[in-house]
Amino acid sequence: MELLKERILKDGLVKPGNVLKVDSFLNHQMDIDLINEIGKEFRRRFPSDKITKILTIEASGIGIACIAAQYFNVPVVFAKKSQSINLDGDIYSTKVESFTHKKVYDVILSKKFLDSNDHVLVIDDFLANGCALMGLIDLIHKAGATIEGAGIVIEKGFQQGGDMIREKGIHLESLAIIKSMTDTSLEFE
Amino acid sequence: MELLKERILKDGLVKPGNVLKVDSFLNHQMDIDLINEIGKEFRRRFPSDKITKILTIEASGIGIACIAAQYFNVPVVFAKKSQSINLDGDIYSTKVESFTHKKVYDVILSKKFLDSNDHVLVIDDFLANGCALMGLIDLIHKAGATIEGAGIVIEKGFQQGGDMIREKGIHLESLAIIKSMTDTSLEFE
Repeated sequence: MELLKERILKDGLVKPGNVLKVDSFLNHQMDIDLINEIGKEFRRRFPSDKITKILTIEASGIGIACIAAQYFNVPVVFAKKSQSINLDGDIYSTKVESFTHKKVYDVILSKKFLDSNDHVLVIDDFLANGCALMGLIDLIHKAGATIEGAGIVIEKGFQQGGDMIREKGIHLESLAIIKSMTDTSLEFE
Repeated sequence: MELLKERILKDGLVKPGNVLKVDSFLNHQMDIDLINEIGKEFRRRFPSDKITKILTIEASGIGIACIAAQYFNVPVVFAKKSQSINLDGDIYSTKVESFTHKKVYDVILSKKFLDSNDHVLVIDDFLANGCALMGLIDLIHKAGATIEGAGIVIEKGFQQGGDMIREKGIHLESLAIIKSMTDTSLEFE
């Protein structure tokens, strides 16, 4: 998606440890016009009328999923990163290792909001080592629901997550795939 | 807002400890059509053209803020609940006590995304004791920005947060204010 790639080149910052900061438009401050274009592009790439739910994970996936959901006319469900007293005991849970925070956390989803009738599109901002996405896929499997695909805004193509997901036969669409990045250059696939 | 009140009466659940669960449409599963109506209503109640940013706090405020932002044509900035290695050291921070999780956490915001030129509308899903909203107001003060108002989806009118905010002279609009709730009844103001 050219508009997105141009924006990453213009406003993205590469930090030590293979960290790409896009916090001025995607995951701290959010450019809603850009995210609307991202939502439309996800719809173009996943035209199926079977999709019943969009699943994402808190926090930065939520805004993107909500804007995108307007083009799919389905509800958003977001998985939560730790037990809350506001959630029933009746939950699916999985463990996810965070690349950013260097720790393992529990990811939970109320059983009420995903079942075997659901056809699920996963949406998230980043795909790197694939841990968050694998966790969401595990939750979908536990619910007996069908995965229609995964839509990612930015994939770090030099990490293994994308290959891992594609090898499972999952329809993965990443709107920008980064081939390599250093302090002074950033190349897309 | 009648549509919202009807939905709370239909799908909200009161749990022990004055917890109102609206997780089937607002803060775990999200009904995007309803949230679009909520966004339009916030715009109707805050018609000012001075607003430059919508500020919210992760996680459940983000989706509501992003959908609402489409009616304001401004970016969303969301405050984060703990230090992340993806954030610069150059941050505003404040402490917030969580009613739901019974703990105090740090809330942070990159200085890049809020300054003295900004006129800020705060949006969040709940207002109860007011701790989260007071934290966001503190961040706005630290940035030297102007508070244009606060838009809340559900206010627990029997807790002190709403009065505390109104006494500060802040333009507070809550789309549903709960006067009282028990296992068997829920009344709005």
